[in-house]
Amino acid sequence: MKPAKDFLRRPFTTRVPELLVQSIIIGLIIGMIVSIFRFVIDKSIHFLYFLYPYLAAHPQWISLYTIFTFFICILVSKIIKPYLLDLSGSGIPQVEATLMGEHEVNWFPVLWRKFVGGLLVSSMGLFLGREGPCIQMGALVGQGFAENIFECSEEDRRLLQCAGIAAGLSAAVSAPLAGVFFLVEVITHSFKPKECISALGAAASADLVTIIFFGTRPCLYLPIAKKLPVHSYWSLITVGIVAGLMAYGYQRSLLNTKWLFSKLKIIPMQYHSIVPLLLVIPIGLAFPHVLGGSHYLIDSLFHNPLIIQEEKLGQLSWILIPVVFFLLRLIFSMISYCSSIPGGTFMPILVLGALMGTIFATVFIHLGLIPTDNYTNIIVVSMAAYLGAILRAPFTAIILLTEMIGTVEQVLPMIMSVFIAYLILALLGGEPIYTVLRKQMGFK
Amino acid sequence: MKPAKDFLRRPFTTRVPELLVQSIIIGLIIGMIVSIFRFVIDKSIHFLYFLYPYLAAHPQWISLYTIFTFFICILVSKIIKPYLLDLSGSGIPQVEATLMGEHEVNWFPVLWRKFVGGLLVSSMGLFLGREGPCIQMGALVGQGFAENIFECSEEDRRLLQCAGIAAGLSAAVSAPLAGVFFLVEVITHSFKPKECISALGAAASADLVTIIFFGTRPCLYLPIAKKLPVHSYWSLITVGIVAGLMAYGYQRSLLNTKWLFSKLKIIPMQYHSIVPLLLVIPIGLAFPHVLGGSHYLIDSLFHNPLIIQEEKLGQLSWILIPVVFFLLRLIFSMISYCSSIPGGTFMPILVLGALMGTIFATVFIHLGLIPTDNYTNIIVVSMAAYLGAILRAPFTAIILLTEMIGTVEQVLPMIMSVFIAYLILALLGGEPIYTVLRKQMGFK
Repeated sequence: MKPAKDFLRRPFTTRVPELLVQSIIIGLIIGMIVSIFRFVIDKSIHFLYFLYPYLAAHPQWISLYTIFTFFICILVSKIIKPYLLDLSGSGIPQVEATLMGEHEVNWFPVLWRKFVGGLLVSSMGLFLGREGPCIQMGALVGQGFAENIFECSEEDRRLLQCAGIAAGLSAAVSAPLAGVFFLVEVITHSFKPKECISALGAAASADLVTIIFFGTRPCLYLPIAKKLPVHSYWSLITVGIVAGLMAYGYQRSLLNTKWLFSKLKIIPMQYHSIVPLLLVIPIGLAFPHVLGGSHYLIDSLFHNPLIIQEEKLGQLSWILIPVVFFLLRLIFSMISYCSSIPGGTFMPILVLGALMGTIFATVFIHLGLIPTDNYTNIIVVSMAAYLGAILRAPFTAIILLTEMIGTVEQVLPMIMSVFIAYLILALLGGEPIYTVLRKQMGFK
Repeated sequence: MKPAKDFLRRPFTTRVPELLVQSIIIGLIIGMIVSIFRFVIDKSIHFLYFLYPYLAAHPQWISLYTIFTFFICILVSKIIKPYLLDLSGSGIPQVEATLMGEHEVNWFPVLWRKFVGGLLVSSMGLFLGREGPCIQMGALVGQGFAENIFECSEEDRRLLQCAGIAAGLSAAVSAPLAGVFFLVEVITHSFKPKECISALGAAASADLVTIIFFGTRPCLYLPIAKKLPVHSYWSLITVGIVAGLMAYGYQRSLLNTKWLFSKLKIIPMQYHSIVPLLLVIPIGLAFPHVLGGSHYLIDSLFHNPLIIQEEKLGQLSWILIPVVFFLLRLIFSMISYCSSIPGGTFMPILVLGALMGTIFATVFIHLGLIPTDNYTNIIVVSMAAYLGAILRAPFTAIILLTEMIGTVEQVLPMIMSVFIAYLILALLGGEPIYTVLRKQMGFK
């Protein structure tokens, strides 16, 4: 047997510190970009909450707003046309293709066009997530710094792109660990120490910047008051099974909607955004608070159980309202995503999961099967199961929701329902959503 | 572009459900084995807390107890001799070697010998962790079921061994996510979906069994009352730097102690346990509550800040007590680990981290640098930094401590200090501890 010096490396021979400093720098830059992106979208959506009720009350302005919408559509088409393949959708399939060496990206034009294009369409209230665009912008910043400033090797460029991905999601949702786990579970499928520690550095520093903008809470703060009692764990099985079935339905519908849009040859691809941009107007007039990503909707579902409003709302509304909202958001978020515009599906999936959870929770409570206090537990578990199954990324879903609810006491219930949903999806033949979207775009 | 059916698999063609059922079965078995292991050790250590004060009061019995110790040493030597390479230490380096195809294990004899041998030495109060042995037993159960019951392919056997590793740690500390992350970060360095989901299934079901034995709390429950205020974050840098330096010192000392023990040719290897077994007697007579893994010590440090006992204990005791305990546990846990007996270093490292945290916290509070309320925050952050650096596994450390404290509000402070400690260790040339221990044992 030999002593320690034969096994430990010589001091100060590692390149890790250099890489970490680079990761922290790009993390800070990404944190800044994403914070501005989030801030502008948040303000715009809040403006819509004021604008649409005003339009509903003064319908004479609607036609003017419609003309404005056409103008936005043309502006967006000008921005996205030169890099349509890179700019349409969340951008995550394209990032995967880039890391696989299947695709080359010109980082700067794609970055600013995604930023401006994404801002424009999200600010109009389309049901789009900003998480995908933030992830893609993160990867592009990583690439840009690696190519132009740090002048890295090929291997280090990849590491910084990966760090950028983690930082992008971390800043988008203010949840640093979820950023890193998304990277390893969805994108790289590996857990190499150097890759992960640089991703952690970038994710934590990006999160620090968002703390300056938005405070220490996650972008969606869902505090849970009560533990789910063990004798109510059967409900997790129900949630898991239904979430798995619905996740499979979501995957099929999304791929088929995208395919149908590709058949829509009468309108050139860069103008497809006109479909959701026009459709959003009647939706906004009817239900302004459904618009957007939408944090507001989840927040209000979470804090105002519909069940207790039964007297006010009438006999069946406690179940009808979430069902209608679910269908509306399901269909319209598909149309929004598939119309070749820069916006993602991440938050829309979470919103659907939350609506599904509301349906479960109200039914269970109405039938006296679970205590009223556990309304929020079911919502959170349902969000995790639905997201975890569609992405086929159970860990990302569990870590993200845990960072959002702020306590680890729901980990075991979440694991159980995510696990079942994942299993159902796998049985039916579902695949990781970004992988199939990537293949559908023509990459390997 | 093509429709969904061209990208999703045909339903009911996946083998995932079969694998998951197998993982859950081995998870339940491992949960059972580990729970019994934990239960017996806990009871024995509690008996020692009663026995040693009695011996101190009635010294005439000490010689009888010494003879009993010799008897235990001989018994242990009989148990470990036929499989000395597999049974000495935590077992994690051996598990790594097995998964790398460097080593073949005869699972059943190693399993029961590790169980009985580990019980005997841990029950005598040596400063050993049970986490390593539980991880190894988990891997062996996975291997045994794969070879003898499920009759799996080579690839599936590996998957079940991995699931067993995750289940072993999950059950040892009642923290399912930490089990999975230990597997991917320390052992496999990959994040393949099939591997992770089966590991998660095994870890969750193993955790469920421990819930039946011990309740829903982690084995070490460290609730934190107050957030660390942002203006005290400078303290994290101090903690990170010192923890990194100490982690490097730990790695060097452990490898060198093991090397020195290998020079101790006068006693055959299987009897080396006599060194710690005799040394533990005076330690137990002086400080019975320092004995064991030791959950009790962390718990008491956590809930009884020494700083407030200054009047009772005299001028400098608030700093002297943790320093003396730190040195005592550091030296004696090295001797315990390196004497070729079945026991690990995982919990002893956490205890050292907690003692280090106590020193930091008391100094900071004494100098008026941080609020008294944040005593526990510093302990937790210090545990994470020390463990994360020595294992070079920052994520495992952060997830484990988060599951232990039960809230995610300390994630960012933990990331910062673990990050710095990791960086310092990397700069000095430290390596992942189980990798270097594996190499020192002669594996690749």
